[in-house]
Amino acid sequence: MVSDTVRSSPRFMHLPTFMRAPLIEDRSEFDIAMVGVPYDGAVTNRPGARHGPREVRSASSMIRAIHPVTRLNPFELCQIGDAGDVPFENLYDIAAVHAEIEAFFRAVGDDGLTSLAIGGDHSVTLPILRALATEGPLGFIQVDAHTDTWDSFMGSELSHGAPFRRAVEEGLIDANRTVQIGIRGAQNSMEGWDFSEATGMRVLFMDEFTQIGAEAAAQEARDIVGDGPTYLSFDIDGLDPAFAPGTGTPEVGGLSTVEALTLLRELRGVQFLGADVVEVSPPFDPAGITALAGATMAYELLCLLSDQSSKKGA
Amino acid sequence: MVSDTVRSSPRFMHLPTFMRAPLIEDRSEFDIAMVGVPYDGAVTNRPGARHGPREVRSASSMIRAIHPVTRLNPFELCQIGDAGDVPFENLYDIAAVHAEIEAFFRAVGDDGLTSLAIGGDHSVTLPILRALATEGPLGFIQVDAHTDTWDSFMGSELSHGAPFRRAVEEGLIDANRTVQIGIRGAQNSMEGWDFSEATGMRVLFMDEFTQIGAEAAAQEARDIVGDGPTYLSFDIDGLDPAFAPGTGTPEVGGLSTVEALTLLRELRGVQFLGADVVEVSPPFDPAGITALAGATMAYELLCLLSDQSSKKGA
Amino acid sequence: MVSDTVRSSPRFMHLPTFMRAPLIEDRSEFDIAMVGVPYDGAVTNRPGARHGPREVRSASSMIRAIHPVTRLNPFELCQIGDAGDVPFENLYDIAAVHAEIEAFFRAVGDDGLTSLAIGGDHSVTLPILRALATEGPLGFIQVDAHTDTWDSFMGSELSHGAPFRRAVEEGLIDANRTVQIGIRGAQNSMEGWDFSEATGMRVLFMDEFTQIGAEAAAQEARDIVGDGPTYLSFDIDGLDPAFAPGTGTPEVGGLSTVEALTLLRELRGVQFLGADVVEVSPPFDPAGITALAGATMAYELLCLLSDQSSKKGA
Amino acid sequence: MVSDTVRSSPRFMHLPTFMRAPLIEDRSEFDIAMVGVPYDGAVTNRPGARHGPREVRSASSMIRAIHPVTRLNPFELCQIGDAGDVPFENLYDIAAVHAEIEAFFRAVGDDGLTSLAIGGDHSVTLPILRALATEGPLGFIQVDAHTDTWDSFMGSELSHGAPFRRAVEEGLIDANRTVQIGIRGAQNSMEGWDFSEATGMRVLFMDEFTQIGAEAAAQEARDIVGDGPTYLSFDIDGLDPAFAPGTGTPEVGGLSTVEALTLLRELRGVQFLGADVVEVSPPFDPAGITALAGATMAYELLCLLSDQSSKKGA
Amino acid sequence: MVSDTVRSSPRFMHLPTFMRAPLIEDRSEFDIAMVGVPYDGAVTNRPGARHGPREVRSASSMIRAIHPVTRLNPFELCQIGDAGDVPFENLYDIAAVHAEIEAFFRAVGDDGLTSLAIGGDHSVTLPILRALATEGPLGFIQVDAHTDTWDSFMGSELSHGAPFRRAVEEGLIDANRTVQIGIRGAQNSMEGWDFSEATGMRVLFMDEFTQIGAEAAAQEARDIVGDGPTYLSFDIDGLDPAFAPGTGTPEVGGLSTVEALTLLRELRGVQFLGADVVEVSPPFDPAGITALAGATMAYELLCLLSDQSSKKGA
Amino acid sequence: MVSDTVRSSPRFMHLPTFMRAPLIEDRSEFDIAMVGVPYDGAVTNRPGARHGPREVRSASSMIRAIHPVTRLNPFELCQIGDAGDVPFENLYDIAAVHAEIEAFFRAVGDDGLTSLAIGGDHSVTLPILRALATEGPLGFIQVDAHTDTWDSFMGSELSHGAPFRRAVEEGLIDANRTVQIGIRGAQNSMEGWDFSEATGMRVLFMDEFTQIGAEAAAQEARDIVGDGPTYLSFDIDGLDPAFAPGTGTPEVGGLSTVEALTLLRELRGVQFLGADVVEVSPPFDPAGITALAGATMAYELLCLLSDQSSKKGA
Repeated sequence: MVSDTVRSSPRFMHLPTFMRAPLIEDRSEFDIAMVGVPYDGAVTNRPGARHGPREVRSASSMIRAIHPVTRLNPFELCQIGDAGDVPFENLYDIAAVHAEIEAFFRAVGDDGLTSLAIGGDHSVTLPILRALATEGPLGFIQVDAHTDTWDSFMGSELSHGAPFRRAVEEGLIDANRTVQIGIRGAQNSMEGWDFSEATGMRVLFMDEFTQIGAEAAAQEARDIVGDGPTYLSFDIDGLDPAFAPGTGTPEVGGLSTVEALTLLRELRGVQFLGADVVEVSPPFDPAGITALAGATMAYELLCLLSDQSSKKGA
Repeated sequence: MVSDTVRSSPRFMHLPTFMRAPLIEDRSEFDIAMVGVPYDGAVTNRPGARHGPREVRSASSMIRAIHPVTRLNPFELCQIGDAGDVPFENLYDIAAVHAEIEAFFRAVGDDGLTSLAIGGDHSVTLPILRALATEGPLGFIQVDAHTDTWDSFMGSELSHGAPFRRAVEEGLIDANRTVQIGIRGAQNSMEGWDFSEATGMRVLFMDEFTQIGAEAAAQEARDIVGDGPTYLSFDIDGLDPAFAPGTGTPEVGGLSTVEALTLLRELRGVQFLGADVVEVSPPFDPAGITALAGATMAYELLCLLSDQSSKKGA
Repeated sequence: MVSDTVRSSPRFMHLPTFMRAPLIEDRSEFDIAMVGVPYDGAVTNRPGARHGPREVRSASSMIRAIHPVTRLNPFELCQIGDAGDVPFENLYDIAAVHAEIEAFFRAVGDDGLTSLAIGGDHSVTLPILRALATEGPLGFIQVDAHTDTWDSFMGSELSHGAPFRRAVEEGLIDANRTVQIGIRGAQNSMEGWDFSEATGMRVLFMDEFTQIGAEAAAQEARDIVGDGPTYLSFDIDGLDPAFAPGTGTPEVGGLSTVEALTLLRELRGVQFLGADVVEVSPPFDPAGITALAGATMAYELLCLLSDQSSKKGA
Repeated sequence: MVSDTVRSSPRFMHLPTFMRAPLIEDRSEFDIAMVGVPYDGAVTNRPGARHGPREVRSASSMIRAIHPVTRLNPFELCQIGDAGDVPFENLYDIAAVHAEIEAFFRAVGDDGLTSLAIGGDHSVTLPILRALATEGPLGFIQVDAHTDTWDSFMGSELSHGAPFRRAVEEGLIDANRTVQIGIRGAQNSMEGWDFSEATGMRVLFMDEFTQIGAEAAAQEARDIVGDGPTYLSFDIDGLDPAFAPGTGTPEVGGLSTVEALTLLRELRGVQFLGADVVEVSPPFDPAGITALAGATMAYELLCLLSDQSSKKGA
Repeated sequence: MVSDTVRSSPRFMHLPTFMRAPLIEDRSEFDIAMVGVPYDGAVTNRPGARHGPREVRSASSMIRAIHPVTRLNPFELCQIGDAGDVPFENLYDIAAVHAEIEAFFRAVGDDGLTSLAIGGDHSVTLPILRALATEGPLGFIQVDAHTDTWDSFMGSELSHGAPFRRAVEEGLIDANRTVQIGIRGAQNSMEGWDFSEATGMRVLFMDEFTQIGAEAAAQEARDIVGDGPTYLSFDIDGLDPAFAPGTGTPEVGGLSTVEALTLLRELRGVQFLGADVVEVSPPFDPAGITALAGATMAYELLCLLSDQSSKKGA
Repeated sequence: MVSDTVRSSPRFMHLPTFMRAPLIEDRSEFDIAMVGVPYDGAVTNRPGARHGPREVRSASSMIRAIHPVTRLNPFELCQIGDAGDVPFENLYDIAAVHAEIEAFFRAVGDDGLTSLAIGGDHSVTLPILRALATEGPLGFIQVDAHTDTWDSFMGSELSHGAPFRRAVEEGLIDANRTVQIGIRGAQNSMEGWDFSEATGMRVLFMDEFTQIGAEAAAQEARDIVGDGPTYLSFDIDGLDPAFAPGTGTPEVGGLSTVEALTLLRELRGVQFLGADVVEVSPPFDPAGITALAGATMAYELLCLLSDQSSKKGA
């Protein structure tokens, strides 16, 4: 198949689709769609995540097929393609953009594909959840420096600091089946932390994560989300700025990539029906390591999704 | 006075106000206000100009007082201060942000001060013109790679590609007293170029500018705007990317800084009642030369404004 | 058509094909093929041009359709597509790689398409010329800091300093219909300069170019190549390092982009049957301005090629 | 209060005072003064720390108020302001500059304020200690790659490699109540290490720190300094270059930010009467993560100082 | 001696030989030769390692003499010099270049010196092993993200992904006395991993390394290589990209520098007869931390080699 | 000869002496000494020029032998070597450092060699002039953004803004045989400009330079300095920041490299007895083009010096 040839060619060649996977023209031939969501209109701080999908695509040429630990090959388990970017017709109205994102992911889902999204700022997870949570609230695993459960900011309830407050309010995620990992950084009020804890989310602050380690964190996450359908959202600012400087709201003292890879790998078996990597901001990434980290986390998520998808199909 | 001491201290010291001028606490003590407008929500391409005011302020510590050619010292001609940034309460709704900008500049003008704005994307010039053009359309000199007279884009009529179409429609600028200098770069339609020329603007494309030179261009601009009140807007992308890589929509083949300095210097005597420098985007400016170019252009504008302001006062 | 929609969408979106043109699947639907040649195995100095096609593609999203001076729209004149990269099977043997390049361009030409190549190091022009010069030596216009007519280096006669010596020897280009523009930089021997001048090439050294200007240089180039079929090769190091730092062998004191754009524009009407832009080396291009300059020069060449191609077709 | 509004506004706005705190005009209204010390004339290696205060100020806009672990809000515990930079009148004579620094910190202390200094090179801690150690030697906690207890270098006894040798000699710090954490890197002689150990300092080399961990290190530090008045100096090169590349004398194999944050947090309760963060060198910090790390460490120190200061006041 | 004076002078001064050691003119005066191998013609991905020796030399000015943990001073134990770069006469033919490398190292060895090589891409280790393994296969300790035991790629069996497959086949290293540490990253086939394990190498994948820690890994490596002559090859991509972004094939989730320093330090006593640090690629290293990490690892290797060499000499 | 071989080898190889010339061990074998002066302790603004000699040396590997316009080969005209850096014993006392510089250049001159110095900040030219002007004041050609004839600053009369005021006062240069080219940038007082003009220097401000062009400027400079012994000092900030961002005090609107190369080339025949290139500051030079510009200017100066030296010897 073309994609195998492409994936085995030198990494600097050819059009950089996600993971050098084929472009999706006919969805019926695919199980998993990787989708770019180049939108950063909802950031509260440094912009640039609109350039994330392009640079993560480029960095993802570095990624190959067979996992070094699990020996899973997602490209053998499933038919995986690059669905391109959500084709926006709006750029300046968060709600309108969110509606376009929701419609696109709903269409992909309606055609039977599981989606792996690459943002874009974290606000884009909200419309994706709206598209996916059609049969009740989802379990939710979030790797992030911030809970993103804050309320309105500078005139909007849809900023990238608010999506999971909205998601709870709209019944898209089940707070009791939600875990937020890597939370840290000072805040001007406790509004977001309080909302998360008051609604029943498990907030695994970074100091506790460091104490218990990635494997125990993964085990706790598995216990929390249980057997039900679950979504995973990986905000690249969950990583320490040494590992991911290219993001809009960096907070020092975060996860190492070893910890993040361990955490994700140990989540195998959770019933994931979607996932994303968000907040890679290339203008702040002079050495390109953030895009590479984002692409690698996306690969780990692809392993989780393909493992689930292949079992579901069996 | 404090600002003189500060301006003579080493350039790496102290809080970086614009040109190391004093912060304005009581407007009645000042003639000219430098104002930051950290907004980039209307860009069509690469964001980052929201960080422009901060980095132009920092680079402007390099700037000193007495002009090497004209020997003007704007700080002796006028009382010049830094009015801080427009204090936004909105961030995600272009029209609302523009209303806040307009209100701030109107208030500064009502207190008798001339403003020099530092953007921010080029959309911010529209509300500034709304604040200033209270007694009829203004003459308008624009240095830019793009005419910014395009119509709606991705759902908005207020993008940074549209402000001067709106300004003509709203009667804020007089197309027959308007000159656009440095225009270049391919376009997907001729809509903007056609609008400029159809309404009577002089569009001095870059190839013609190169032929006639900066001094002739300045003379033509003086002839076009005549004796009436005039506004000058300097989009840093008017400069070539070698001189100003840090901008959202760079177009190769632009003005050198020697040409730009000559052009501005030769506009002395025009009746300027306001000016701005926009579209400095620090995330794309690894060597900081764009912010320095922006600060230097702002200094030239300060010379023009202070020269006018001091004569007006006399 | 899809490409128009894509070309009008925000520049940070979608897969970055050259100029956001459609990927070529069926050559019979296209007139002009843009081809990536990601090879830098023949450099004598700094590598990195293998990454050129990808970054020029990405930067070319900035480019739009209608030329600001000539008002040509190459995408209306011709069907233009992105043919992807030459699909190498060798990477470590210059001659073998050159054979693959030649075969690819020969196949594209056999299908009736004109090619615009994006390198890669300058050695890649040699096999392209081999593919094109099937009916006798071509006229040749080269913009470059170096004549690239040197002999063997470090064990190879195929380094990127030698292609046009080989091209003359092989009868691919007509030295009497060849002009080399922008030549400069000290050399350890006069071998290359001497070869160029001894065989009858016009070597327009940079000091003379500065004296006569871009328009006279273009006129002289037109006179030299005359009415016959001609190839144009633009080595990005013809530009000054201020405008194009990201290249393998920079030489200070080169063309500005204004000069280069004027030069290319004034070559309209020459019977071009192919062209390339080479030696963009992204690892040395922190602000991305070299890739943007390369993309813009490629657009100018596209205008020249499409203008010719459309007349030929008429 | 103004500072609260400012601290809650978007992080890219407004003049970047330290932590977006108000500028101190009347010291009597404040408890804690953050002071910039933009001096790097005593470095032995790469300069640039003179630009530290400005970039740490800018990065500190990222910092907010409430600590994610302790829930302390230093801005509620104390009145905290930015006292600007030490207003130097000398730049080229280390002793003269040190005298100016000492005088400024003495004045701030005489007015009853606790100081948090942001350097500048590490030599600036010496005059600060001179200003503070008015009632006998202080306890001293130092995070650093180097003991900075070396003797004269290239003609001076005041280089940034010598301040704590001088501080012991002058009776400013009590070697028996001193701990140096993170020490590593080869040396040309053992002079400095030997001085530290011979005088009774606890030198916690990096290999031992790694063995025992940050919490045990903090406990040992608390035991060493005991109940007496103590100063904390954080040289950013204590962090690994992955976390803090922007410093004059980087040494690989240092603390992670998780370790540093843990260490500082666990020092709560020590009777700190002053602290500093030094050696952030922005010219070597292309992604800005060193300035952000410096600002975050400064915030942790602010928590420690405000916690002490508020108890003292009670 | 001159080198001591040089090593004690400010780090920004003088010609940057490796570790500021004297240039070797007469080999009979030296015990250990540091050798640059500026070749990257065998990379499969991003080039640039040809610039490695120069930038590692420059960064190594930061390194001094006495080890902070072991207190070894290699410059007292042995006479150590910089032998310059392998003087290539070929650049474009991997086998020819390898022959030149082999000849040079053989000559150095014949003169009784131990070599510490600085690459260059990892292919250069193969000819070095050919020069050294004159009396049977060597023990082999490799720190790397990749096993480099893959077979032919793009027409060559000598790419930097293949050297240790070749080394086993040629009887240069003893697979049963080989350990590969830090292996990670997805692969398109298991060919390389399988070869390593099938021939008896111990492949310590990164996940297991993280579990057991650097000290246990060192102990295991010591057990595997035993008392026989052993070579150590340190591919800088064994480090995580946060610590070493400047390399051709980065893989996230690697060793920290603390782990790497511990690992190397604990290998003291192994009978090393040569070592190298490879794959530092300066064009991808904007903050210079990769070159510094490479220089520091080289210093650790110098300690190991000089410790052995001095005992051998005794 | 060794240096020829080295100069013809690939530019990324071998120890980077200036122009890949041999290191000078025995001065009697050489005519011209290139000398590094890595000192930046007298800057008023951004430091970093101490790293200039090393990076100019590295960039100068790009430079080869035969001039493309004049066809001079300085390495055939004279024996040219790299004398290393001035071996400082002081670093923190400007006067003491200056004394060391003077002594070194005096010794080089006493041995009959002409020196080409690479700074370092511009203060270093003062002690060089002291060493050279042993038989009366010299003619002086300065390319610079600043006259550097200011008086004391922050406690010193020896800052890099003052050397030529001191040089006139000390009778080292003849103001009536002095020309300062490229002067621009606002100033806080006219002290320096006034001193230059009052003492009889020709100050060719940038606006006038632009009007008359580089060739006329060179002619005027030749007329001013006449037949007597003359020194040339090239401050890299004479170039525009687009061409030379890496300097301590950049001023936009400066010379292009084409203009600078023309200017220097046209000075052939002036009786130069020494020259320098100063103020290259690598930490502010992310693309390395400033170091390359500095190396190229140094090569032009080498042509001028060798042309003179060879005639003198004849």
